[in-house]
Amino acid sequence: MVIDAHAHLNAPEVFYAYKARLQSSGGHHRGDPKISDEALAAAAARNVAALDEVGTTMQLISPRPYQLMSSARPERVVHWWVEANNDLIRRSVDLHPDRLAGVAALPVCAGRPVEEALAELDRVAAMPQFVGVCLNPDPSEGAGTTPPLGGAYWYPLFERLVAHDLPALVHSAGCFNERETYSEHFITEESIAILTVLRSDTLADFPELKLIIAHGGGSVPYQIGRWQAERLMPSLGGSPGAERFEVSLRRLWFDTVLHNPASLRLLLETVGPDRCLFGTERPGSGSVADPRTGRHLDDIKPVIDAMPGLSEGEKQLVFEGNARKVFSRLPC
Amino acid sequence: MVIDAHAHLNAPEVFYAYKARLQSSGGHHRGDPKISDEALAAAAARNVAALDEVGTTMQLISPRPYQLMSSARPERVVHWWVEANNDLIRRSVDLHPDRLAGVAALPVCAGRPVEEALAELDRVAAMPQFVGVCLNPDPSEGAGTTPPLGGAYWYPLFERLVAHDLPALVHSAGCFNERETYSEHFITEESIAILTVLRSDTLADFPELKLIIAHGGGSVPYQIGRWQAERLMPSLGGSPGAERFEVSLRRLWFDTVLHNPASLRLLLETVGPDRCLFGTERPGSGSVADPRTGRHLDDIKPVIDAMPGLSEGEKQLVFEGNARKVFSRLPC
Amino acid sequence: MVIDAHAHLNAPEVFYAYKARLQSSGGHHRGDPKISDEALAAAAARNVAALDEVGTTMQLISPRPYQLMSSARPERVVHWWVEANNDLIRRSVDLHPDRLAGVAALPVCAGRPVEEALAELDRVAAMPQFVGVCLNPDPSEGAGTTPPLGGAYWYPLFERLVAHDLPALVHSAGCFNERETYSEHFITEESIAILTVLRSDTLADFPELKLIIAHGGGSVPYQIGRWQAERLMPSLGGSPGAERFEVSLRRLWFDTVLHNPASLRLLLETVGPDRCLFGTERPGSGSVADPRTGRHLDDIKPVIDAMPGLSEGEKQLVFEGNARKVFSRLPC
Amino acid sequence: MVIDAHAHLNAPEVFYAYKARLQSSGGHHRGDPKISDEALAAAAARNVAALDEVGTTMQLISPRPYQLMSSARPERVVHWWVEANNDLIRRSVDLHPDRLAGVAALPVCAGRPVEEALAELDRVAAMPQFVGVCLNPDPSEGAGTTPPLGGAYWYPLFERLVAHDLPALVHSAGCFNERETYSEHFITEESIAILTVLRSDTLADFPELKLIIAHGGGSVPYQIGRWQAERLMPSLGGSPGAERFEVSLRRLWFDTVLHNPASLRLLLETVGPDRCLFGTERPGSGSVADPRTGRHLDDIKPVIDAMPGLSEGEKQLVFEGNARKVFSRLPC
Amino acid sequence: MVIDAHAHLNAPEVFYAYKARLQSSGGHHRGDPKISDEALAAAAARNVAALDEVGTTMQLISPRPYQLMSSARPERVVHWWVEANNDLIRRSVDLHPDRLAGVAALPVCAGRPVEEALAELDRVAAMPQFVGVCLNPDPSEGAGTTPPLGGAYWYPLFERLVAHDLPALVHSAGCFNERETYSEHFITEESIAILTVLRSDTLADFPELKLIIAHGGGSVPYQIGRWQAERLMPSLGGSPGAERFEVSLRRLWFDTVLHNPASLRLLLETVGPDRCLFGTERPGSGSVADPRTGRHLDDIKPVIDAMPGLSEGEKQLVFEGNARKVFSRLPC
Amino acid sequence: MVIDAHAHLNAPEVFYAYKARLQSSGGHHRGDPKISDEALAAAAARNVAALDEVGTTMQLISPRPYQLMSSARPERVVHWWVEANNDLIRRSVDLHPDRLAGVAALPVCAGRPVEEALAELDRVAAMPQFVGVCLNPDPSEGAGTTPPLGGAYWYPLFERLVAHDLPALVHSAGCFNERETYSEHFITEESIAILTVLRSDTLADFPELKLIIAHGGGSVPYQIGRWQAERLMPSLGGSPGAERFEVSLRRLWFDTVLHNPASLRLLLETVGPDRCLFGTERPGSGSVADPRTGRHLDDIKPVIDAMPGLSEGEKQLVFEGNARKVFSRLPC
Repeated sequence: MVIDAHAHLNAPEVFYAYKARLQSSGGHHRGDPKISDEALAAAAARNVAALDEVGTTMQLISPRPYQLMSSARPERVVHWWVEANNDLIRRSVDLHPDRLAGVAALPVCAGRPVEEALAELDRVAAMPQFVGVCLNPDPSEGAGTTPPLGGAYWYPLFERLVAHDLPALVHSAGCFNERETYSEHFITEESIAILTVLRSDTLADFPELKLIIAHGGGSVPYQIGRWQAERLMPSLGGSPGAERFEVSLRRLWFDTVLHNPASLRLLLETVGPDRCLFGTERPGSGSVADPRTGRHLDDIKPVIDAMPGLSEGEKQLVFEGNARKVFSRLPC
Repeated sequence: MVIDAHAHLNAPEVFYAYKARLQSSGGHHRGDPKISDEALAAAAARNVAALDEVGTTMQLISPRPYQLMSSARPERVVHWWVEANNDLIRRSVDLHPDRLAGVAALPVCAGRPVEEALAELDRVAAMPQFVGVCLNPDPSEGAGTTPPLGGAYWYPLFERLVAHDLPALVHSAGCFNERETYSEHFITEESIAILTVLRSDTLADFPELKLIIAHGGGSVPYQIGRWQAERLMPSLGGSPGAERFEVSLRRLWFDTVLHNPASLRLLLETVGPDRCLFGTERPGSGSVADPRTGRHLDDIKPVIDAMPGLSEGEKQLVFEGNARKVFSRLPC
Repeated sequence: MVIDAHAHLNAPEVFYAYKARLQSSGGHHRGDPKISDEALAAAAARNVAALDEVGTTMQLISPRPYQLMSSARPERVVHWWVEANNDLIRRSVDLHPDRLAGVAALPVCAGRPVEEALAELDRVAAMPQFVGVCLNPDPSEGAGTTPPLGGAYWYPLFERLVAHDLPALVHSAGCFNERETYSEHFITEESIAILTVLRSDTLADFPELKLIIAHGGGSVPYQIGRWQAERLMPSLGGSPGAERFEVSLRRLWFDTVLHNPASLRLLLETVGPDRCLFGTERPGSGSVADPRTGRHLDDIKPVIDAMPGLSEGEKQLVFEGNARKVFSRLPC
Repeated sequence: MVIDAHAHLNAPEVFYAYKARLQSSGGHHRGDPKISDEALAAAAARNVAALDEVGTTMQLISPRPYQLMSSARPERVVHWWVEANNDLIRRSVDLHPDRLAGVAALPVCAGRPVEEALAELDRVAAMPQFVGVCLNPDPSEGAGTTPPLGGAYWYPLFERLVAHDLPALVHSAGCFNERETYSEHFITEESIAILTVLRSDTLADFPELKLIIAHGGGSVPYQIGRWQAERLMPSLGGSPGAERFEVSLRRLWFDTVLHNPASLRLLLETVGPDRCLFGTERPGSGSVADPRTGRHLDDIKPVIDAMPGLSEGEKQLVFEGNARKVFSRLPC
Repeated sequence: MVIDAHAHLNAPEVFYAYKARLQSSGGHHRGDPKISDEALAAAAARNVAALDEVGTTMQLISPRPYQLMSSARPERVVHWWVEANNDLIRRSVDLHPDRLAGVAALPVCAGRPVEEALAELDRVAAMPQFVGVCLNPDPSEGAGTTPPLGGAYWYPLFERLVAHDLPALVHSAGCFNERETYSEHFITEESIAILTVLRSDTLADFPELKLIIAHGGGSVPYQIGRWQAERLMPSLGGSPGAERFEVSLRRLWFDTVLHNPASLRLLLETVGPDRCLFGTERPGSGSVADPRTGRHLDDIKPVIDAMPGLSEGEKQLVFEGNARKVFSRLPC
Repeated sequence: MVIDAHAHLNAPEVFYAYKARLQSSGGHHRGDPKISDEALAAAAARNVAALDEVGTTMQLISPRPYQLMSSARPERVVHWWVEANNDLIRRSVDLHPDRLAGVAALPVCAGRPVEEALAELDRVAAMPQFVGVCLNPDPSEGAGTTPPLGGAYWYPLFERLVAHDLPALVHSAGCFNERETYSEHFITEESIAILTVLRSDTLADFPELKLIIAHGGGSVPYQIGRWQAERLMPSLGGSPGAERFEVSLRRLWFDTVLHNPASLRLLLETVGPDRCLFGTERPGSGSVADPRTGRHLDDIKPVIDAMPGLSEGEKQLVFEGNARKVFSRLPC
């Protein structure tokens, strides 16, 4: 069995026309996305076909991140849009309950208290279709004004996630900054998330909090030597007797969304196969064929299957076991 | 023959999904709206059917204003989106050249020189499908920072409009302000446009400039007594010998997009039938049946037909003659 | 009997010299306007003579709006100035208690809680000279940052107005924006006030709140078709079964400050003579003779007297009855 | 003969009512101050009587500084107001050409190039009624954003002053900052003006520029030891061989507006009687009787007359000679 | 015995290298100044030698003000730096307890509640090495945004100072404004402090609060006539019967840091020798020899010794008595 | 021979005390760092000893990045500080010309034109001690407002670098953002630099421009699959026929400052040993012993020596050959 822990909603295109109306209206009218059952069924069928193509049993789907507009104003359009996304995911999961499971977005809005997202969190937690949430660590979408993930701002949300036993996929959304595309911003934000969480008391205060860092952990596994050194240096607040950085790192979870075999190997060696969840972001950033090989870059399963030094048990953890552990609400 | 001078593009819904992608991408990728000929033809056919329904011969279509996002950042997404709209209008006109004519949007962007919109103006001026432009007098979309229409900021655009003999429909776009919906902002902006233009030297400096004020002139025909008095009062810069306000007002053109017969009568009496162009904004703000009468509020033709005191010649001016005078590039 | 419900204080000129000192001092010294009884009596006598000229029995006077500087800083100068205005009105009313009645200004300051104006409201409510208040719906004076009238910001004020049984004349004040003169801003703000109040729960929450919209309701009676349609359209939050817009509109009151007979007729037909209060703003925006007729534009009484289709009973409502109903504290 | 080099216009009170209208209008109407010849003559007569009271032969009058609103927006109201002030001074001087002379204000506006004030400078320079100008070194009126007087921003103005042979009385205007009244700000600004000018190349680049520092030089004569030390210290850019600070200080001129005899003595001893101009600011900051002595604090002439160690020749310089040297356009 | 009440810490140079690291680190690491006992002893010995040179018995040392960076961000670096300074002062005092006493800095940070500085105040109050604190009245360091000293913002601090019986030396710190050097800003801020405190209720509300104004009271003793007049003038809130300004001024204390004998004389005559504390700021702003006399400008003792009209008892007050009264925690 | 291409100046500690004075002074005084020849020689000797310890022949030293304060205000303090750093590097190189070579900092200041740094570039280019420059791609130091490296802002600098044949080490400096330490910001900025340069025309327009990306290229070699896919996808502006991303990547140079062997291997495999320069940042981020191995994390030479699959020729390129190619001004 292969569970793809990182994938996004395959909605009918007109769903995004609704978003355009919502955003253009200035928040004065909520409107209605009007996605018919037929249109949704067609989209969901395409999704399942894509799973079949690469041998995935089940996919955990969250809203398409770069469309989430968490810094839009007024905030109610963000709420309305997040709710519409979660509703569509719920309906999709209902169409294919054995192939899809939901990972809900949260309406954490730029410059607003995180508490304002809890009502929607409670709403999705009450629905069996959802097994986790997607957590955007930068609702300011590239403005640089979001309190870092390892900090008090986020505690009310962490507390509620633990209460609901919902894991969070840490994955940024849009980016409105000339310096970074949203795709680059994903990497930056994942790195910041890891480093600020591990420097903070977050995981001590919430030992049951389950955070999955998307895209193989941003830059951190590659730059790990830098952070190992920081941990050891007194001038930077470290000490030779502190918990080693690579041990701390293993308090988090990681997905395998790295479209390059050598990087995937570095990830698995650095954090261990028992902390990695199979994920493809498919269809998404890697859904293109390499002209040299004909292979899709996001067809990651064969890469893991062929990874030297990985036991069958370890592969099972990556493909299914870890996901079952983290996403405890997944149907058997 | 009945020419509807104020109407908007009837695009396939997925066109606005393209807009959502564009706006969410932060301007890093232009992408492609991918509107197929089939989808466009279906939309255009719906448009023509709507004309037939109410006896309209020809409709002048511009982009849907509230979707124009002229204050979005970075500016290139505004340009891309305006160009995509104009391209779709051109294709629509080509499908029904005797029923549709194009009124192009311009990429005047909040906080940027108006000159940056001239390249697109030149581009559409070179296409026979376009007979006029739509001029948003508030690219700041409700932020209150746009230089008023009666001022030097707009001169390079006015000069080029005159050079191309293109009239401008003055019509604001979005509004991102808790105080006004975009629809209310239309009225506010049209009023400001009239008053700042008439207090300025604009029409003396550009005697050939043709400005059509949408929605029956905002509040001005109703509040005309106030402005007549201002013209006469020395303490407000007026004088008893100044040109009377109602005379000045007739240097502009007006459309009939007022979904209320009494208001329509006030307009025609105040500015004269020789300055009014038939317009419906259909389908749009008035496309709903009045439960008391069953009549659509934007079915304005019968109202004008029944207007007491309006001669046949005057009706012809409103329905066709004035439009032909203003939109001189209209095919015969 | 003719009651003019919309007029402003006729203060000695040097009163405004006090304002200049106040504003220039940076709020460090309150000073004293030093208006002698003689100077005030002379000004009040001029006022009464102006009433006699046009046959007005009684006038309700509020401070001159454009001088109210509600966005000035520091706020204490606004408070001091409003109090000085109300004091001068009180003294004026005392000189001619059967010809003048007071409508107090309130020190609602830009960017400050509305609660800070309640002490002054209570102060004037305790004085028999005052029968109502003047409510500036945009203390930001054109900056666009004031919470709209139909919203929670204003509730503490509405509650207190109801408690005191004081009606509010909705009338904006200054405008510091290149786009609009204060006079244009009056129209914009009255329109926003009507539309945001009618879209909100305000009148349901405060059924006894009495709001008089100045200048004939801004643009709304003229553009009423637009708002009737919105009420009916599901996509804009309306429905065919909703209360019709023109019915809702009649939950508000209107004055007749429209210096144009045709507009006055449109107003009376649209909202009904039982919702209109005679008002002239005299001396003010219409105090100039039309060179064609010799008639002053703000001499509105003959226009109403001559209005076709208006019964004597309806005229009495407009001239006196409605005012007595709304300004319940008016002396018999 | 006694020339009072620092005094302000004694205008009819209603002149400031004009200012209030101007400032409240948002710059949309210039209006007219409407000061009649009679009202002006009465005010000017009061002024001359005040001179007679204390034995002053002639007074140099500039606009009342704290009323100058140089940071008001839009800038044109500042221009209009400055021009109205200068016009009133011109008319006052014409009434008493042997008792009054004009010192013009300049419309240097906060955040605008100093060049925008030159047209008004040229206008007053062409009038024989004016013998100098009043220079506000902080048009930002307490916001802290004005380029310091010893810097390139001011060069175009300095150049033109030299060309017209007009001296400048350095005197700040309003202050909109909770920390300082305008009166305190005078002292702060005069100190900054002295120190930034003396640290800069201004007086080397404009050797003929004549700057009179108001109010006895702010804090500088009292704190002179501090600045003498700075001049000598290499670590602060000084050197033992640099021109001594007290020598540099004597490149400027000072008035005697210090309402305390001991301070006046310190000033005269520090900068020398050949650099001080008699000034009283009368009527103004010191126009109050000391209850202990009955003497007005701004009756400075007897204090100087009685100053020990001051020769008759030195007194003549203070009372007349220096003023004639600096204000070279003064009539004989 | 001669007590120098105004002097600053003589730290090893590398202490400021620590500051540079702290400020550059963005507040992510506190680090350690690492000042060895040897280095500190050498610096302290230099300090004591400087006392011996001019006959000072004891010096009260506070951190070097212009280095205090109270407007730096994030605030924790300000706290860390202030604490490091106070710690170094404590260690210095311990090396020479009969020659040095500590005056602690407080971490009042720009834009933050004053309460955040109270923990450090309590910490130093518990150490016998400290006899007073240094109070920067402008933590915004020249931005003009600090609430003035005579106001509610400062009350929690005043209350705690009184509770600990600790006097405060009012002395501003850095200045980041093109208009003023930090040294000029000292004078401006001391003047503002005096005037806002004396116009407020502070000293009535805290009769036991002891404020020493540095640098001879800024500009106030020199400009005293201006403030005496304000006290008497009704239009400025004064009255002939109000407490005279020079009486109020004597509710404060002053140091003698004026490097000019005539100014020192003005100070002593104006506020009285019973309100002045000997102070030199040595080594500091006056530590340079006058080439004409060879004397150091900050060698103030001989100047006071030679001051005409000062009795021996008065000199004793200046040199010791007043300091003992104000700094009640000074060891006998 | 082993050339360490990435290392920083080992200055005496008091050099940073100078920086603290400079930054605290508000830019009013330049002062002097006063680093004696003895102190510098001692520091340089420590530096050379550190080279000997790990077998490095020669080190290229630039200023310590996090101390560069490129966003400090006013800009002249940044210029002064950069110049002082370059001067100290020059003096250090002169002490050990065969062991040290200079890499100069540039005073590119936040929010200022890059042209303002060219004078200092020209100054160092004229000195034989300098072989390259250090280029901070984010002078805004974490504010997110710097134009990205692949853009027109930087062209004048690139042009001048090519003209002088000076390579640039791309290395960010400070970071004043709660989200990232300066060390994390290095990684973010290097990633942004690579991606914006490779998406732009920079390297086509300046084929001779030599950019060395510090710290092994940030996140890019690890996340390379993501960017390979983007290059191939039409919807993101790519195409199957475009130059492959890994080919483009090899148009840049990289250093080996990765304190983790597996990451170092990934780098060498991804970009090739012919594009990597040996670098250690020693002493710096990795100068701490791993308690498990006793080895310093920044002792990278043995790691490369032991790297499987790397030929001797390839090692020579990494250790010396590539550095000689890039830093063409290095002495033989």
